[in-house]
Amino acid sequence: MSKLAVVAFGGNALLRAGQKGTISEQEENAFDASKNLVKLIRKDYNLVLTHGNGPQVGNIFLANAAGHKMYGIPDMPLDVSVAYSQGFIGYMLEQQLRNVLMMEDLDRDIISIITQVLVNKDDPAFRNPSKPVGPYYTKAEADQARDETDSVFKEDPAGRGWRKVVASPKPMMIFNRVSIERIAREGHIVIAVGGGGIPCFFVEENKIQGIDAVIDKDLASALLATQIRADRFFILTDIPKVCLNFNTPQQETIDRMSIARAQHYLDEGQFAEGSMAPKIRAAISFVERTGKDTIITDTTLLGVDNGGTRITIV
Amino acid sequence: MSKLAVVAFGGNALLRAGQKGTISEQEENAFDASKNLVKLIRKDYNLVLTHGNGPQVGNIFLANAAGHKMYGIPDMPLDVSVAYSQGFIGYMLEQQLRNVLMMEDLDRDIISIITQVLVNKDDPAFRNPSKPVGPYYTKAEADQARDETDSVFKEDPAGRGWRKVVASPKPMMIFNRVSIERIAREGHIVIAVGGGGIPCFFVEENKIQGIDAVIDKDLASALLATQIRADRFFILTDIPKVCLNFNTPQQETIDRMSIARAQHYLDEGQFAEGSMAPKIRAAISFVERTGKDTIITDTTLLGVDNGGTRITIV
Repeated sequence: MSKLAVVAFGGNALLRAGQKGTISEQEENAFDASKNLVKLIRKDYNLVLTHGNGPQVGNIFLANAAGHKMYGIPDMPLDVSVAYSQGFIGYMLEQQLRNVLMMEDLDRDIISIITQVLVNKDDPAFRNPSKPVGPYYTKAEADQARDETDSVFKEDPAGRGWRKVVASPKPMMIFNRVSIERIAREGHIVIAVGGGGIPCFFVEENKIQGIDAVIDKDLASALLATQIRADRFFILTDIPKVCLNFNTPQQETIDRMSIARAQHYLDEGQFAEGSMAPKIRAAISFVERTGKDTIITDTTLLGVDNGGTRITIV
Repeated sequence: MSKLAVVAFGGNALLRAGQKGTISEQEENAFDASKNLVKLIRKDYNLVLTHGNGPQVGNIFLANAAGHKMYGIPDMPLDVSVAYSQGFIGYMLEQQLRNVLMMEDLDRDIISIITQVLVNKDDPAFRNPSKPVGPYYTKAEADQARDETDSVFKEDPAGRGWRKVVASPKPMMIFNRVSIERIAREGHIVIAVGGGGIPCFFVEENKIQGIDAVIDKDLASALLATQIRADRFFILTDIPKVCLNFNTPQQETIDRMSIARAQHYLDEGQFAEGSMAPKIRAAISFVERTGKDTIITDTTLLGVDNGGTRITIV
């Protein structure tokens, strides 16, 4: 029987540091990323792909702000910006993966699903919004935007100005989880939970509503992998293996570690916030609840024996 | 056995004439539109929903143009704007339909699929782009934008300035058609082909690519309905029945007409371009190829006996 894997791409799988984000750049990056999935497909994995959206949602947010200023277009909360980014990145990734599958003569459909994710309105993250999004403002602009939109703004520690900050609540449930599992186990490739999913909450009984927040994509991907009972969870990053003492003369790579060991290094501060730390937490979350392994690596090592760092239950 | 229906919403199902397009307006409209699907569900129809995106893609296009001017964000071609709008409208429609289903105690999943649609690069529409999109420019601005982006601009006949015009090629194939049919026949509600679908073409063997064009959503919906072998095709509009001599003292409503009769009225010029004419063409296209009926009506008459205008093979 085929195994089921969740593969989490970073937002930078499509838009790399230093690039402007033109469509042809993102197309090429998506093609390169897709090529690396072929080894997994040939090893008979059924696949669910997830992706970040950091660089893209930044551009969407800027464009919305500019459209509001120049043309009076209504303000769009972040749930809508995430929805835009799912449409865009899902499209781009699906298109390039279709090209790869055609070249490789592999016959699978690809279904990109716009995914809502439930969060809890009581999540402590809402009391202390801390994730910066969008452009830098002057103090006066930030004050005005705060009054108009009820958003929270904080001064950038590096002195570049004021930025909107939003909550990053914990994902509780993937609305489409049952369908995602069914479609993937039928042998089709599903793209889902883009940008961590569109955050929604129960505003009252039988009524969900979007909320101005963003969900960490690694955590949302781990939850999805758990809820669809994946056999393997791959988290992609820029480096082939997780490192200790990263970027120091004492740097060493890790081939394999238990979740207890991973938690120990996390507590020691070995992994940078906003970078490796959320990936390690997502890996621990999946392994702890399923007993299955997580592999953290870069896209080129997907499906390569002993590629990446393997995180295991013991 | 359940019947399968395709229901095509207009873009104005979410953003009505005279509204600015705030999120709360669009949420409320989507909720109202969704409520009307319950009668069809209770009549044991499996559903595929499609939707237009005219008002929304207009705002997306303006925001992109403003973001390009103010912040130097790379220009986005129309295929990407359509992808954004599929993310947004699919999200909004799915969310409000979820609320309706919860209230009505109906247990179906809703799967919103980002949909690419194949067009032919040799389509004559590409030799004469004619569909206006986005903001009005001065002649100088239009000349500059043309040089920068290879777009075509035409002067507005009403003298409001210059606007980008794009091709509206004929849809040839819905990439996800097999999966859409399978998921819908399993009893889940699929949202697909938003805004007529993301236009793509074969740039070479085994390589598809997006293109700066828009596909008529009624025609794309008719093609989808045909390709998934729907039993019924509903096209929603602002009026309960199709009219002859519309908006004149001689106006009369049509309860039922054959496709030959519909073609006759179309040739007479009874139906306005950009409004009822494309709906009649889409209806003819579906009925002609399947022998099944199309119903054109407003959302409140969905599933009501003898609601709307029925278009039949003879």
